[in-house]
Amino acid sequence: MLFKFHHALPCSQKPSFLLKDQWTKVMRSVNMENLRTGYLFPEQAMALSTVEGYSGYGDEQGEKALRKRIAEKFYKNMDVKWEEVFVSDGAQCDISRVQMLFGSHVTVAVQNPSFPAYIDSSVIFGRAGNLQEQNGKYERIVYMECTPQNDFFPDLSNTPRTDIIFFCSPNNPTGTAASASQLRRLVDFATANGSIIVYDSSYAAYISDGSPTSIFQIPGAKQVAIEISSFSKFAGFTGVRLGWTVVPKELSYSNGFPIVKDYDRIVCTCFNGASNIVQAGGLACLSTEGFQAVSKVLNHYKENAKILIEAFRGLGMEVYGGENAPYLWVHFPGSSSWEVFAEILEKTHILTIPGRGFGPGGESYIRVSSFGHRQTILEASKRLTSSLRKFNFN
Amino acid sequence: MLFKFHHALPCSQKPSFLLKDQWTKVMRSVNMENLRTGYLFPEQAMALSTVEGYSGYGDEQGEKALRKRIAEKFYKNMDVKWEEVFVSDGAQCDISRVQMLFGSHVTVAVQNPSFPAYIDSSVIFGRAGNLQEQNGKYERIVYMECTPQNDFFPDLSNTPRTDIIFFCSPNNPTGTAASASQLRRLVDFATANGSIIVYDSSYAAYISDGSPTSIFQIPGAKQVAIEISSFSKFAGFTGVRLGWTVVPKELSYSNGFPIVKDYDRIVCTCFNGASNIVQAGGLACLSTEGFQAVSKVLNHYKENAKILIEAFRGLGMEVYGGENAPYLWVHFPGSSSWEVFAEILEKTHILTIPGRGFGPGGESYIRVSSFGHRQTILEASKRLTSSLRKFNFN
Repeated sequence: MLFKFHHALPCSQKPSFLLKDQWTKVMRSVNMENLRTGYLFPEQAMALSTVEGYSGYGDEQGEKALRKRIAEKFYKNMDVKWEEVFVSDGAQCDISRVQMLFGSHVTVAVQNPSFPAYIDSSVIFGRAGNLQEQNGKYERIVYMECTPQNDFFPDLSNTPRTDIIFFCSPNNPTGTAASASQLRRLVDFATANGSIIVYDSSYAAYISDGSPTSIFQIPGAKQVAIEISSFSKFAGFTGVRLGWTVVPKELSYSNGFPIVKDYDRIVCTCFNGASNIVQAGGLACLSTEGFQAVSKVLNHYKENAKILIEAFRGLGMEVYGGENAPYLWVHFPGSSSWEVFAEILEKTHILTIPGRGFGPGGESYIRVSSFGHRQTILEASKRLTSSLRKFNFN
Repeated sequence: MLFKFHHALPCSQKPSFLLKDQWTKVMRSVNMENLRTGYLFPEQAMALSTVEGYSGYGDEQGEKALRKRIAEKFYKNMDVKWEEVFVSDGAQCDISRVQMLFGSHVTVAVQNPSFPAYIDSSVIFGRAGNLQEQNGKYERIVYMECTPQNDFFPDLSNTPRTDIIFFCSPNNPTGTAASASQLRRLVDFATANGSIIVYDSSYAAYISDGSPTSIFQIPGAKQVAIEISSFSKFAGFTGVRLGWTVVPKELSYSNGFPIVKDYDRIVCTCFNGASNIVQAGGLACLSTEGFQAVSKVLNHYKENAKILIEAFRGLGMEVYGGENAPYLWVHFPGSSSWEVFAEILEKTHILTIPGRGFGPGGESYIRVSSFGHRQTILEASKRLTSSLRKFNFN
């Protein structure tokens, strides 16, 4: 992904052009609370070489300015306070960090298919039980089936109660976003059962149809949900590592103890804050110019997704996702997802992901990513159209 | 801490002076394996704005070049392979990450006093039992007393067997480094008991008297020890977040399963790698110029420590540490560490750390840090000498 924010500043203002004492003045003028442009990201790295710009340990929970900006930008009118926002080194890390709250004996439900980390970390924390060969499922995990038949939203009337419900929307891999009425049902279900929803909104920036971008848009969600999110797909921070988690003050254990207090303790003990340079980069993405630049890149990927949808639909295939997510979920009914993956790779040299990697519910699907240069996507589209037309996936 | 590596390059070579196509050429010439100077750190942040320089997810275990450099630089002749080095976002995070290997039912020993994270994370993982009011100790933790009487090395003949032994050398807070013969006894003790040593060498760069800088200097340690270390105090990366953990292939659970395989799984599932920008910075510190620059700063702090030792000794106080660590451990026999802390703060406006914060074994001590500008250290020394002479700490 491109990361061109510094082009917003004319070259003559770039601090690396300045002599050292001028530099010092520039650094003194940098105010994290008042950041105007996206240029601070590399500047912050350079600043560490100056007496004025060097910073040691920050708050384990994240820079206050960044926590505030996240609360304002992503949770407007949702009554999320900055103290409830914990900055992290990415959503995947926070999935495990949240697991530390609950110990080994809680029960867990996940969407099927789903991003593997929910189950994998549950296995590591000792709550999954044995893997059952007959169906590829762990015996103590509740799998909430998400298929085209149920609009990729689980049938909650058939879902057993669990302590924790992992729910990802827009979903990775299916690319579908839950609607407000679906999330209303989910929150009601959790409320009635005394369950905690761990809501993963890492792909929320891709939502285009007005679906909720946060579980906290649903009244009452603050009593039952934690939300995990990320800069990885929103701003191309995959290798840079930045995310956040919202733990509402209203959320408590069954004995009334506020979960946010334990989470704060975990963050301070088992984590020590995201990198200061990286946080400066995150803040830059949430400035006016930064957000515009990020939105431009997001739109680029959304257009990529449209091109890929068209290619697969042109081949007569059922395609889901791609509208509210960077991922397409392409159905090859009756086929093995690994065989489809291998055949596409062999015939077109295009890498997809076999759906089976996202759990047994991913069988007969592949996940297709729209993260790429336009030229690559157009070339992929061309190859798919010309090569796959000849093949017959049962 | 100063971080001035980029001064090693003349200004005319700084890429931000270049036009975009020249920039592209510069970025193409950047070879992580072949890095010559410390300048890449900010450059790497800037590189993310280019098509050529953008990088997404890296290896969860860390950049191969950095893992190799760490193995070469810190574990020469110790038979540590780069595949055994896992790059992290800091030692504190790895202390908890290592805890994930062992579940809730293992028994744990710690030095008393010690860095709080060993006990705090053991509490979070459910293995500490209750805090006992009469002695301030957790009932299921074994406290290995470290005092001037035993040269700050525990009496192992009196130490009950535990599954895990946390051992920090040079120690935070006492500032003392274990000798080769002491570590030999520790490794023998762990071998005889089938215990695993989690060895924290975060302050190893401060060792001046030839004491081992790694547990792996002791033959046989690879069978019984994991080593956690950090760029925080070695290179001023506290807020930048970078560290590493060595898990030797020879180390296994009692059933013979290699621990490194589980650790790799934890790193891939519950972590997702340290920030790519930060890793580039770490690599820069391990280049020839980078290492020289870091060593210069380390020597600066070592001199600070000498100045502070002199000040406290001049007041007739017993001072430990400071020779092999950035910390002094100053004894005020019979006094409460919080009262000493408060009195010093009030009379001299100098912040120390009450020893009690490091466990009951820290009572009647304060920890003094040498991390500061020379002018600050000299001023502190002056104030201590003139103000404290008048006070009588029982």
